[in-house]
Amino acid sequence: MLHKYKLIKMKNTILLFICLILGISSFGQQKELTIEDAVVGRWRQFYPEDLMSLKWRDNERFNFIKAWTEIAEGNIKNAEITSILKLDELNAILEKAGIEKLQYIADYEWDSDDLIRFETASKLVVINLSKKSIEKSIDLKENASNKQFFKKTGSLAYTIDNNLFVTTNDGKNIQITNDQDKGIVNGSDYVHRQEFGIDNGIFWSPDGNYLAFYRKDETMVADYPLVDITTRMATLHNIKYPMAGETSEQVMLGVYNFNTGKTIFLKTKGAKDDYLTRITWDPTEKFIYVAELNRGQNHMMLNKFDAGTGDFITTLFEEKNPKYVEPEHDMYFLKSNPNQFLWFSERDGYQHLYLYETSGKLIKQVTQGSFVVTDFLGFDAKDQNIYVLTTKDSPLERQLYKYNIKSGKALKLTESEGMHQVKLNPDKTFFIDNYSNSEIPRKINLVNDKSKIIKELVNAKDPLKDYKLGEMSIGTLKAADGNTDLYYRMIKPVDFDPAKKYPVIVYVYGGPHAQLVENSWLGGTGLWEYYMAQKGYIMFTLDNRGSANRGLEFENVIHRQCGQEEMKDQMKGIEYLKSLPFVDQDKIGVDGWSYGGFMTISLMVNNPETFKVACAGGPVIDWKYYEVMYGERYMDTPQENPEGYEKTSLLDKVENLKGRLMIIHGGQDPVVVWQNSQDFVKHCIDKGVLLDYFIYPTHEHNVRGKDRIHLMKKITQYFDDFLK
Amino acid sequence: MLHKYKLIKMKNTILLFICLILGISSFGQQKELTIEDAVVGRWRQFYPEDLMSLKWRDNERFNFIKAWTEIAEGNIKNAEITSILKLDELNAILEKAGIEKLQYIADYEWDSDDLIRFETASKLVVINLSKKSIEKSIDLKENASNKQFFKKTGSLAYTIDNNLFVTTNDGKNIQITNDQDKGIVNGSDYVHRQEFGIDNGIFWSPDGNYLAFYRKDETMVADYPLVDITTRMATLHNIKYPMAGETSEQVMLGVYNFNTGKTIFLKTKGAKDDYLTRITWDPTEKFIYVAELNRGQNHMMLNKFDAGTGDFITTLFEEKNPKYVEPEHDMYFLKSNPNQFLWFSERDGYQHLYLYETSGKLIKQVTQGSFVVTDFLGFDAKDQNIYVLTTKDSPLERQLYKYNIKSGKALKLTESEGMHQVKLNPDKTFFIDNYSNSEIPRKINLVNDKSKIIKELVNAKDPLKDYKLGEMSIGTLKAADGNTDLYYRMIKPVDFDPAKKYPVIVYVYGGPHAQLVENSWLGGTGLWEYYMAQKGYIMFTLDNRGSANRGLEFENVIHRQCGQEEMKDQMKGIEYLKSLPFVDQDKIGVDGWSYGGFMTISLMVNNPETFKVACAGGPVIDWKYYEVMYGERYMDTPQENPEGYEKTSLLDKVENLKGRLMIIHGGQDPVVVWQNSQDFVKHCIDKGVLLDYFIYPTHEHNVRGKDRIHLMKKITQYFDDFLK
Repeated sequence: MLHKYKLIKMKNTILLFICLILGISSFGQQKELTIEDAVVGRWRQFYPEDLMSLKWRDNERFNFIKAWTEIAEGNIKNAEITSILKLDELNAILEKAGIEKLQYIADYEWDSDDLIRFETASKLVVINLSKKSIEKSIDLKENASNKQFFKKTGSLAYTIDNNLFVTTNDGKNIQITNDQDKGIVNGSDYVHRQEFGIDNGIFWSPDGNYLAFYRKDETMVADYPLVDITTRMATLHNIKYPMAGETSEQVMLGVYNFNTGKTIFLKTKGAKDDYLTRITWDPTEKFIYVAELNRGQNHMMLNKFDAGTGDFITTLFEEKNPKYVEPEHDMYFLKSNPNQFLWFSERDGYQHLYLYETSGKLIKQVTQGSFVVTDFLGFDAKDQNIYVLTTKDSPLERQLYKYNIKSGKALKLTESEGMHQVKLNPDKTFFIDNYSNSEIPRKINLVNDKSKIIKELVNAKDPLKDYKLGEMSIGTLKAADGNTDLYYRMIKPVDFDPAKKYPVIVYVYGGPHAQLVENSWLGGTGLWEYYMAQKGYIMFTLDNRGSANRGLEFENVIHRQCGQEEMKDQMKGIEYLKSLPFVDQDKIGVDGWSYGGFMTISLMVNNPETFKVACAGGPVIDWKYYEVMYGERYMDTPQENPEGYEKTSLLDKVENLKGRLMIIHGGQDPVVVWQNSQDFVKHCIDKGVLLDYFIYPTHEHNVRGKDRIHLMKKITQYFDDFLK
Repeated sequence: MLHKYKLIKMKNTILLFICLILGISSFGQQKELTIEDAVVGRWRQFYPEDLMSLKWRDNERFNFIKAWTEIAEGNIKNAEITSILKLDELNAILEKAGIEKLQYIADYEWDSDDLIRFETASKLVVINLSKKSIEKSIDLKENASNKQFFKKTGSLAYTIDNNLFVTTNDGKNIQITNDQDKGIVNGSDYVHRQEFGIDNGIFWSPDGNYLAFYRKDETMVADYPLVDITTRMATLHNIKYPMAGETSEQVMLGVYNFNTGKTIFLKTKGAKDDYLTRITWDPTEKFIYVAELNRGQNHMMLNKFDAGTGDFITTLFEEKNPKYVEPEHDMYFLKSNPNQFLWFSERDGYQHLYLYETSGKLIKQVTQGSFVVTDFLGFDAKDQNIYVLTTKDSPLERQLYKYNIKSGKALKLTESEGMHQVKLNPDKTFFIDNYSNSEIPRKINLVNDKSKIIKELVNAKDPLKDYKLGEMSIGTLKAADGNTDLYYRMIKPVDFDPAKKYPVIVYVYGGPHAQLVENSWLGGTGLWEYYMAQKGYIMFTLDNRGSANRGLEFENVIHRQCGQEEMKDQMKGIEYLKSLPFVDQDKIGVDGWSYGGFMTISLMVNNPETFKVACAGGPVIDWKYYEVMYGERYMDTPQENPEGYEKTSLLDKVENLKGRLMIIHGGQDPVVVWQNSQDFVKHCIDKGVLLDYFIYPTHEHNVRGKDRIHLMKKITQYFDDFLK
């Protein structure tokens, strides 16, 4: 099966001819992207029209922010868009109360269907929309982070430095923890290095009588020294960085009881450096559930604890896998039956939903098949159906499906090809469908549960219609296992001539949890690839085995051997490229960052005859220098898997390097620490191997902000210098 | 005046022709240097024959080490070379005494004319040559550094970590200091960052009754963080680095009295961060002299102290200069009159010798003229004449002169053009003259005090005679002041064709205390420049104003404005190069390290239209990041000279950069700290300016050892990539 999408084609050569004669270069498909366009324009002038902060107010009304200055509203009946609150009005209300004004409306929350909440520099402010007055305001402490407002009680939990605090509805301030040692961190979302989908460290109980929170003790973790060169004299900033096989952090779960004013800690069963993930409150508030995972990450127990005492009650069920188990989703309780919940598991090889009783009894598998459920979007009013996004139609797409829990029957609710993002109303009777595909920059429709489009809300103009872009196509080829379909994206140079030979740059990531090729606008990539195509390069990207959304076996082929199978697949891509008459086989380059930097250098040193030029950013060089949480999942520890670490290490392979390689690293990288690429350089020096290098002294794991233009210029220059 | 030396010329084109026909490429001026040859060969296969560790045993006999295995001896009479001790004999003696053997003879010392001293791994061993037996041996403690053996008493002073110890002749061990804080360092040669010629921190008194020593307190100096990436997890190593204008170290001078067993400290007069330099014992042992220099380095006092009490006695004299005073030599006492001494001073604009009384009274200036005395080699037996090396004949040369103290009459004792190194016998009746010039790799002669060559000891073969080398010439041109003669060296490409256009690389240092152009073998440079000439580059080096051995005014033109005048002179060099028909004006590159890296980037950003490619290693980028001792001498403090720091800083000039610039830095550089070039890179990134970079993660201020081959390959590649 070959998917082929023509993104933008020149349609009128006569018009082009006229334009050239008249010297009008900025008219119709004639403009050229600058590198600034390519790097920052994607999120500015070339961002297709969208509805910002779209939220359902209730079952009938939905809202979004218009022009940063207005809360707009539509409804399911006439869907006419009105304004319900303008920045001026809002500021007048704030001013009257002596609260500083907002420069623009960046976000809002519905506390009820008439109470809307905003955050100013110093306060949370709840506005009564009918009365156009302030219903309530809460002071925000300076340096407060990890703010979790609980709308049922109106209390706010937050952290300052490493401690946890609550401001209650009646204005009382409670300090929940009081750890002096900065190595003990309470309530932070940065626990277990945010693996297992962790993005929060504070968990309000259903009625707000308890507050559960992560307590991370990293005093025993090694310091990793970062040097800040921006001070008068360079200064040291240590970070805690637990390297694979070394001492890891110890996490506990505290539960503060607002009635007793006391904190208890859950009496978890495993080792101190086990993972406590997917914290979920029982709807009764009496219990709390934790997916406890051993450090080896191959044995998960879903455990139930008494929220009042912290006592362990029972293990609902266990999941094991010889490679790894990776819980990434909470339990989703049924409103109608609080003894039942849905649980995501990859146990049958794909991410699917299972219905359980809290006794631990499996009732049934709800979704099933050789595809993955990427998002759970909720139950309908009677808990009869669930709504999910899946890859059922194609791994390149996300489509909305409704599954009947009882019958297991699936109904597809979105229709157009592509990547859909969906916001359902509370009852799931309507949804707003925001999608794009390779031909559609964006459409947003209000749709009912019969898939009928009630109103087209946005049909975005192509912001690149005046630009000459290379033709993008998506296709499939067979993985190195001879069996699995892999998806690639190719962007051909502008004014492509099949009789010519072009240099190719393979842009690679290749690691787990990422998918680069999608049937979305521009094929899922940014504009730099189109910029490079404009300069005459063929840009090629292949999602190898190991990448995301293709099922467990597809992904966990990397276990204990990161990079090995991925490279084999990438070389299938090279084989395909070499079969194309318009590819210059002597000019193949490769480019990637992070895992992609690892892949880039792996490809260079393992296939020195293939690649002429490579650029690798923030690369892992030896997995022993990577951290415990992600690293040990895929590689086990260096002690457990010495041969795997040796095979995948790039340090002892520097002598294979033949082409030109530039490594780029951020001097403050706290993710892939600088030691990685510095040690690679040292090994190259030891062996007399030449390579190129560049640093971004103040940047972390990536080069963000305006300096990204510099980065992409640097990378572009490198390929221009040596691959063109 | 134009000096022009033809280094090596092809002499026999017919022979060349025959060689080519026969395909004998390694015969006669046909070989090509490899980069390995160029980088390490200079000190191995291409090092002209020499006499190693040449020392006078007494007035009649001299010795040297032959083939690492033998102490050879010559004498003034027949000068026939005999062997006086072979490694086998020596090892037999050691073995008999149960002392570990030597692998080779690396060095030796004469303790008397019959006692010769060697150092083994664990001992100092004094051998009685007549008896072929061990006269004495002293244990060397593990980790002992800064060893100072005092042969008059047979005691050994040394340091372990930061403390000072003595092992006396009778085997007693004395711990002289006992500082627990590693920030206080006793007896180290690394005081005042080894400025002012400091290379020793332990000073035995004339009869060995006292031991003076430096005590450096750097607890108040800022830590500078260096990160070692060679450990399992990167580790921090702080060094003490006082940056210009910031808190400096505090040095004291202790005097240990062996009779009382007590240490006193000299009661110096100035500020705690003044410089204590040129420590000299009075011949009577009662006094000790210290050249005390204020932190501003413009006011020196030669002070006399009581060695028993530490009391200040008197200031002999003071020296001031609106720019700086830089004492670099001890007092040289006359044997015949211990109240008189010689003192080096630049007070008349050139480094000359002055005869003083210890009362402080100036008796007379002994040497005089528009040239510098570079080395004082001693008095004759009756203290009537002194022996010095000077630049009197040419700044490119060093010739031996004898000056009569009374009459001031000078007599030149060496005759051949070139750079002479001289070893005089104790009475100065004979000397061994070791010299080279651009045509002579090395000659070593035994010469008498009438300049008569008694015997030719070495006439080194040209180790490069089989190699094709570019023609080297040395010439002069006028400095930017329109007046001063500057010396340049040019190496033309092999097979030079004046009708062609060649790229040029200017190799620059430019800072004080260095002279790159000399009338010595190869013109004073290494082989890399010849390697580059072989590749087709013209190599050009100019000693600008600011460089060494041309007098004070020539040097101190840099004061408060490092780089400014130096650049003007270098641009005179460029003007000259551009006047040459065979120079490709569009292909001018520049290369330098340290001060030369600073000069390189200064030239690039101040003359962007001139230079196409530059390579700068370990560059100072802003003098505020350099250290107090050297930095403040030339630049004053940032507080005192803000306009000078601004003018010379490269940080705000990044936007001028046009050509290709590669900066190289050692990741462990404790001299020009990494912050320099990282901040330059940051400024380039801030301004969107592209540049290239490379790191040597484990190297300090230079890349030494075998990795130097990698460095020079890297630099060569850069010019090949972008200048060729």
